[in-house]
Amino acid sequence: MHRVEYVKPDGRRMWLYGRSPPKIETVPSPTAEPASLQSHLRRDPILEEWVVYAAHRQNRTFLPSPADDPLAPTTDPTRPTELPCGDYEVAVFENRFPSLSLQSSSPPAIEGVETAAAIGSCEVVVFAQDGSASLGELPLDRIALIFEVWADRTRHLQQFGLAYVLPFENRGIEMGATLQHPHGQIYAYGFLPRVQARAVESLRRHRDRTGRDLVADLAVAEQVRGIRVVSAHGGVVAFNPPFGRFPYEIWVVPTRSVPDLAGLREDERNDMAFVLSQSLRRLDGLWNQPMPYLMTVNQAPTDGAPHPEWTVRIEIRPIRRAPDKLKYLAGTELGAGVFATDITPEAAAEALRSVRL
Amino acid sequence: MHRVEYVKPDGRRMWLYGRSPPKIETVPSPTAEPASLQSHLRRDPILEEWVVYAAHRQNRTFLPSPADDPLAPTTDPTRPTELPCGDYEVAVFENRFPSLSLQSSSPPAIEGVETAAAIGSCEVVVFAQDGSASLGELPLDRIALIFEVWADRTRHLQQFGLAYVLPFENRGIEMGATLQHPHGQIYAYGFLPRVQARAVESLRRHRDRTGRDLVADLAVAEQVRGIRVVSAHGGVVAFNPPFGRFPYEIWVVPTRSVPDLAGLREDERNDMAFVLSQSLRRLDGLWNQPMPYLMTVNQAPTDGAPHPEWTVRIEIRPIRRAPDKLKYLAGTELGAGVFATDITPEAAAEALRSVRL
Repeated sequence: MHRVEYVKPDGRRMWLYGRSPPKIETVPSPTAEPASLQSHLRRDPILEEWVVYAAHRQNRTFLPSPADDPLAPTTDPTRPTELPCGDYEVAVFENRFPSLSLQSSSPPAIEGVETAAAIGSCEVVVFAQDGSASLGELPLDRIALIFEVWADRTRHLQQFGLAYVLPFENRGIEMGATLQHPHGQIYAYGFLPRVQARAVESLRRHRDRTGRDLVADLAVAEQVRGIRVVSAHGGVVAFNPPFGRFPYEIWVVPTRSVPDLAGLREDERNDMAFVLSQSLRRLDGLWNQPMPYLMTVNQAPTDGAPHPEWTVRIEIRPIRRAPDKLKYLAGTELGAGVFATDITPEAAAEALRSVRL
Repeated sequence: MHRVEYVKPDGRRMWLYGRSPPKIETVPSPTAEPASLQSHLRRDPILEEWVVYAAHRQNRTFLPSPADDPLAPTTDPTRPTELPCGDYEVAVFENRFPSLSLQSSSPPAIEGVETAAAIGSCEVVVFAQDGSASLGELPLDRIALIFEVWADRTRHLQQFGLAYVLPFENRGIEMGATLQHPHGQIYAYGFLPRVQARAVESLRRHRDRTGRDLVADLAVAEQVRGIRVVSAHGGVVAFNPPFGRFPYEIWVVPTRSVPDLAGLREDERNDMAFVLSQSLRRLDGLWNQPMPYLMTVNQAPTDGAPHPEWTVRIEIRPIRRAPDKLKYLAGTELGAGVFATDITPEAAAEALRSVRL
């Protein structure tokens, strides 16, 4: 993998990745204005969580026409996009509208609430130059390269003392994606987020009690049982987790204990690319329409501590429960944290396995 | 307040409420089939939460035309709805498609996951006979009656040993409401849900440390500061919480320490009706369109323990962040539990206060 770092005219950084060295002429930006960094954090004293306030984000780009796609390569120099024309496979750049930033200034003092600087990073990861592509349809080598890019970004962001790096993809306008071009994002947090803090606690407790790695063990057990398997290849298995919250939810997990993407062997990366691609294409094939989903890459925290309790997993949360019905998070989910789902993982796996690829 | 209990032809129970005694002729049901009770719980060992599986709910009524409104009073005996024709103000009945039920059978044994019976209750609360009404536009006495109904249902459900009773309203198709008739729901859980368990812990810690009630103190402080107040009357104040997660989020809170709706004095119920009505109408007036929201009533747990640390609050979570843009829960919210919001509570309160009622 080759990586070249650039600085955009507005001061933001960009990294291009490829199997051969990236080659471009000029580094564009849709604007010369520096990125807005007016976020701050506020502390919820009841749920004991940080909430991010990023008022400037109201004006972010919203569902532009394909001709105005800011993630397409720049072809007309008078109308620069975020990305150059040239030879590269995957592009990463700092978000113009970041919720979190390494340059976050000291927080405002606000009466009645504890505040903190919104330290972190928000990056955009463009999976392909072709705006009509989709992650699941990309060549397997490209998907494997994206894993390497995520691992590289994780290493990079860890250097700045950030506690957690979360690559994710919001796919589909139903999921709130504001750009259709195939891309994901990376949020890196200066603190360990609630979901991951909870997972570290329970996984460590499990390891202390049993000496075992809960997630890798689950992957092996699901592969053996088979009833919830969606795809499996070599050292990686995709299955509907037996306790999933979303309809047709899929986890892609190595059967070996590996805390993060950087720890995967090349053959495991390739296995994971195959299994992820099959999983995404089965979701699209289920009702012959692109499945809107949230995909997250759940690596171990980057807090410097060893994480033998943690195995990396990719979680795919579809938000369609029937061809014409979305899954909404409402009263019980948002009000109580109790998810209710209509489809059992066993039925979901059976339906997904029957999709012809 | 008067309440009469009935049994529907399919065995479900119904309660009618009014300021004068309810009077009806026959008790209808759209079906004679008994309600489906095939839910079960599964335990997520990583986040240590229960997830509800209710496969039969896929077939529930979905956005019927006004002529097929199952919550309208029955006018044609050959086409019975859920509710009778007659004199009553508020109606409650057991959901035909319950996620949780007191009659839940023993859970299935499922390989690879801990299961439990889906003990609890799911009720529908119809706010008015008029299908075109909305909660915020109802007469204040009706809103105060709805508080009494919620309190009555809470007392009733507590008798069965349920740990938490959550009244809520999903309003608007954008929020996933499948019926437009003004109504809410009540979910009662056999276990203390994650969100409430977390709140009890932190509120108790706060009380042990300071001897104070965090939420009632917050209401008093917000009323004094004024910068985030949306409406205030007598002993109740509505404000954008300084650490809210949703755009234009509003909390309606008494300034006196009261753990649940049953503990409110009549004058406080009336104050709360006024303040809630103003809050909801300000949300609708913000962009002159009905605001889709999730409203939850956060009372103390019904686990039998005293809860001097807890003050009841109504939380309103709008999911529109601009006239033509919804707030989506995506990567950072669902993947990390970290909410990012575009509008500060101070700006939200200013905009809401400027709405002419």
